This record gives sequence, C-alpha cells and structure tokens, in this order.
Amino acid sequence: MNEVTVIGLGAMGGAIAQTLLEKGYQVTVWNRTATKADSIVEKGAVLTSTAAEAIRASQISIICVSDYKTSYEVLDVEDVHAALSGRVLIQLTTGSPEQAQKQEIWANTHGAAYIDGAIAAAPTQIGGSHATIFTSGSMEAFDQVKPVLGVLAGHVPYYGEQVSAAASIDLAFLSYLFGSYLGFFHASRILESDGLRIDDFGSMIAGVSPMIGSILQYEGEVIQHSKYENPQSSLQMSMVTVGLLMEQASEKSMNNEFPLFLQNMFHKAIEAGYGEQDIASLVKTMR
Amino acid sequence: MNEVTVIGLGAMGGAIAQTLLEKGYQVTVWNRTATKADSIVEKGAVLTSTAAEAIRASQISIICVSDYKTSYEVLDVEDVHAALSGRVLIQLTTGSPEQAQKQEIWANTHGAAYIDGAIAAAPTQIGGSHATIFTSGSMEAFDQVKPVLGVLAGHVPYYGEQVSAAASIDLAFLSYLFGSYLGFFHASRILESDGLRIDDFGSMIAGVSPMIGSILQYEGEVIQHSKYENPQSSLQMSMVTVGLLMEQASEKSMNNEFPLFLQNMFHKAIEAGYGEQDIASLVKTMR
Repeated sequence: MNEVTVIGLGAMGGAIAQTLLEKGYQVTVWNRTATKADSIVEKGAVLTSTAAEAIRASQISIICVSDYKTSYEVLDVEDVHAALSGRVLIQLTTGSPEQAQKQEIWANTHGAAYIDGAIAAAPTQIGGSHATIFTSGSMEAFDQVKPVLGVLAGHVPYYGEQVSAAASIDLAFLSYLFGSYLGFFHASRILESDGLRIDDFGSMIAGVSPMIGSILQYEGEVIQHSKYENPQSSLQMSMVTVGLLMEQASEKSMNNEFPLFLQNMFHKAIEAGYGEQDIASLVKTMR
Repeated sequence: MNEVTVIGLGAMGGAIAQTLLEKGYQVTVWNRTATKADSIVEKGAVLTSTAAEAIRASQISIICVSDYKTSYEVLDVEDVHAALSGRVLIQLTTGSPEQAQKQEIWANTHGAAYIDGAIAAAPTQIGGSHATIFTSGSMEAFDQVKPVLGVLAGHVPYYGEQVSAAASIDLAFLSYLFGSYLGFFHASRILESDGLRIDDFGSMIAGVSPMIGSILQYEGEVIQHSKYENPQSSLQMSMVTVGLLMEQASEKSMNNEFPLFLQNMFHKAIEAGYGEQDIASLVKTMR
C-alpha cells in the first residue's frame, strides 16, 4: 500500500508530493490550478481532474492548502464526501485547535478516519531528519499513516486521540518562538545603539541556548504544579530588569514598545499580589 | 596580592564575599547595616567602620549594591574619593550602559581604574562554573582583576575598553530571556486551555533549544548584514501564525494581550512595506 494522494501543490504540498515520489510512493495529485502540477507530473505523479478522483486513487490522502476555509471549499462537495468513505484523511493545513476538532467531526461524518498534523519545518526541510510533524487523532489511523509521515519528517510525535493536541502544541511552540524573536529583536536594538555586533550576540545566544531551554523547562514545572512560592527570581526582582530596559531605551531615545509591554504585564501581576512569587506567576494574570 | 574589599552584603554581595573567603582571599567588608556582616565576619572577613577604610584595605574593591543611586550614596563622599586614588573599583551593581559610562568617568576623576561587570547568575551560582560575569572597561585594570572575577564565575568574557558594553550585552541578554518567558507563558495558556501538560512542553522546548539558538544566530546575521531579502520565512507568512494565535485565544475566550502585541508589531512592519522580507525586518520598525 504505497499509494498516497496529495491535495494542494503550493510550496509545502509540492515538497510533500515530491518527497513521496522520491521515496517510491505512487503519488496522485490534485490542485485547483492544474498547471501548478506540471513539474510534479513530469516527475511521475498522476494528476486527476477532480479532487474526488484523486481521493479515490489512494487509501491515504494528505491535504495541505493555505487555510481551513480553502480546505472546506475543496473537500466539502458531494463527490468528495462519497470518495472519503472508508479512507484516511491527513490534514496538514495550518489551523487552530478548534478547526482541527471541527474537521475531525466533519471527516468522521463522511466515513473517513482523520489525522491532524502540524508541520514544524520549512518546505525545503521536508523529508529531512530535522523536520517535525506534530500529530493527533484516531490511533488506528495514525498507525496506518505513520510510515507515510515518517517519509516526510524525521520526528512525528503523536499526541493521542484528542485531535486538537497537535494544533495546540504547534501554536504553543510558535508562541514561544515569536516571544523569543521579539526579545531578540529588542536586544539587537540595544546592541546597535551602543555600536556592538549583533551577529556575535546571536552566536552567544546559540551557545547558551541549552541553559535557556533548561530555565524554561523549570518554569514549565512551576506552572504545571503551581509552585510559584519561594522563587529563585521573583517578579519583583525581575521588575528591576524591566526598569533598566526602560531606562536604556530612554537614554538612547529608542523605541520602547517591548519593555513597555513587559512593564505593563509585570505591573498587573505585582498589583495582583504576585510580587514575591516566581516570574511564572505572570501566567496567572494572562488567564 | 590576595586582598579584596567587598562593599554591600546583600544576597549577591554576601555570596561574593563568602566565595572569595573560601578561595583563600583576605576579605574586607563594609555594609550600611553593619549587623548584616555578622555571619561573614564569623567566617573570617574583616569589617570596617567606614567604606573608605574598607577601600584602603585592598588594591581591588568590589561594590555590589541594589542600584547606582545607592552606589553613589556610599562612594561619593570625600574620604572615599581619597581612598580610591590608585586603586581599582569593580562595579557589579546592576545598571544601564549610560550609568556605567558615567561611573567610569567619576572613578577616573578620583584616580581609580574602573571595571564594569554584569552578573548573569543567581547568588547561589556564584563561584560555580555556570556563572557568567560580563565585563568591560580599562584593559590594564581587567588584567589585574581577572583572577578575582575568575574565582566568582566560570565565564568572565571581557568586551573591551568601551565601558558600557558589559551592561548593554547584559540587558540584551535579559531582553531575549524576557521575550522567551512571555512567549512561553502564553504557550502555557494555550496548552492549559486544551488540557495539555505544560511540563512536557517545557521538556520539549529544552530538547529543541539548540535548534532555536541556531535560528536566532541566523537572525543575528540577517540584522548585522541587513540581509532581509529572500527570507526562508517572511513577515507576511509569519502573520498567518499570529492570526492563528489570535483565533485560538478567541476560541477559548482567553487573554490575548501577547498575540495582540505581536499583531500590532507585525502590522506596522507590513504597512512599512517589509511583508516579503525576513521576520527580522521587524527590527526596522523598532528603531
């Protein structure tokens, strides 16, 4: 059973179809703009004229389009409903936890097993050992599609039958990454304003990143077990740092949006009475 | 020459004095509240009745108090001025880059060489191999104090004679750390709202932290060399993620301060015409 259907041939869908072809899969494809399939058909994929036909061609179908709205436009039509029955649908379109939940119900209604996957990789990384695809959904379906996903990514963690889990963990990861970006970009401004090198600082951050990872692992335990008391570093102590970030921005007449945002968050938590608690008690005012 | 004076015996100053004593230094101490010195005097430190007397006792003095204001209150008096002449002052009080610059001028005026240090460690880590003290200031003075600082921290990077450098790099590091915290705390809220474990997520972040470090190293090069064009991941593409963070918060009626802040930053950068550029082009709207 090495037939797979790929719906959607954007940068990511195209990389998925090509990787499967390279690994010897018989790949059937469909895309709204058929001409986009030319290069992948040249490499051996079979292009069908309808999405339903593509889905009928394989036991497993992967859909990877720009968003869930597009996904429904493609799939929520009568002949696709019929084609889905008894088959497995892997949704790799980026979406929210609730969108995954709704689409699982929708897929089951039409007799299809459903796996939600969130790709944590760039298209160029698909097929590589560093690519990750978070997954959740029917365990039986996961066992069936595991070899296929294993071709696409070195890491395919499965988070159980709660179908929203993959999307939640993916979003949580991106939230962390984006916070890191913001902190790093403001850091760049501090260095720039003092004539210091940003690339050297980037190398330093790369060097200490395991230590930062272990700090956050610790904070994860603090939040999981509500161990906010007796902190190594309290909110009140961290507020001194926030004050210095504000002071530095003022000294250099620099944009202070980021420290100001921090300051507001810290104020709120300190006003709520968490000053002597772990910095992770910020999370309590973010609820 | 293994005499060192330590001014200020708070949690950090106390840890510094104790570590030096343990490593065989002859330690003279002074603190505004003299009783705070009791335990350290028991361990062999000599307590003086004035700050000037303490400074006269050693070629090298370390000051570590709550802020620069306190530092001036202690040091900016006539008998201290006289005592400083020909000696080296190491300022380990947390402060801004400009505060370090001003205090170097002040110290030089009174005939003292000056080293600014920023401690990136908790008091309990002082003396350990994982502690870091960023330093900058007179190179001649640094060569003189290096063995002392090496007793206090496993890493003592020296950033040259530009005395503000240590404080700038310290603040940049803290800006990065605080951004990471925010992203992680919002991530915790996402997981919590879906009934998922935060400690497991923390372990995952610890596992992938070298990869995140290398992403930021890359972004550091992008900013250093203004290589914003042809990104792996553009601002416009990242905006999809921000949209999903907003959507998830709305689905769960969750606090959305963090994604809203991200969204405003991204909007501004996209409106400025950086949509097709690297995510690091956010830094251009933070100037």
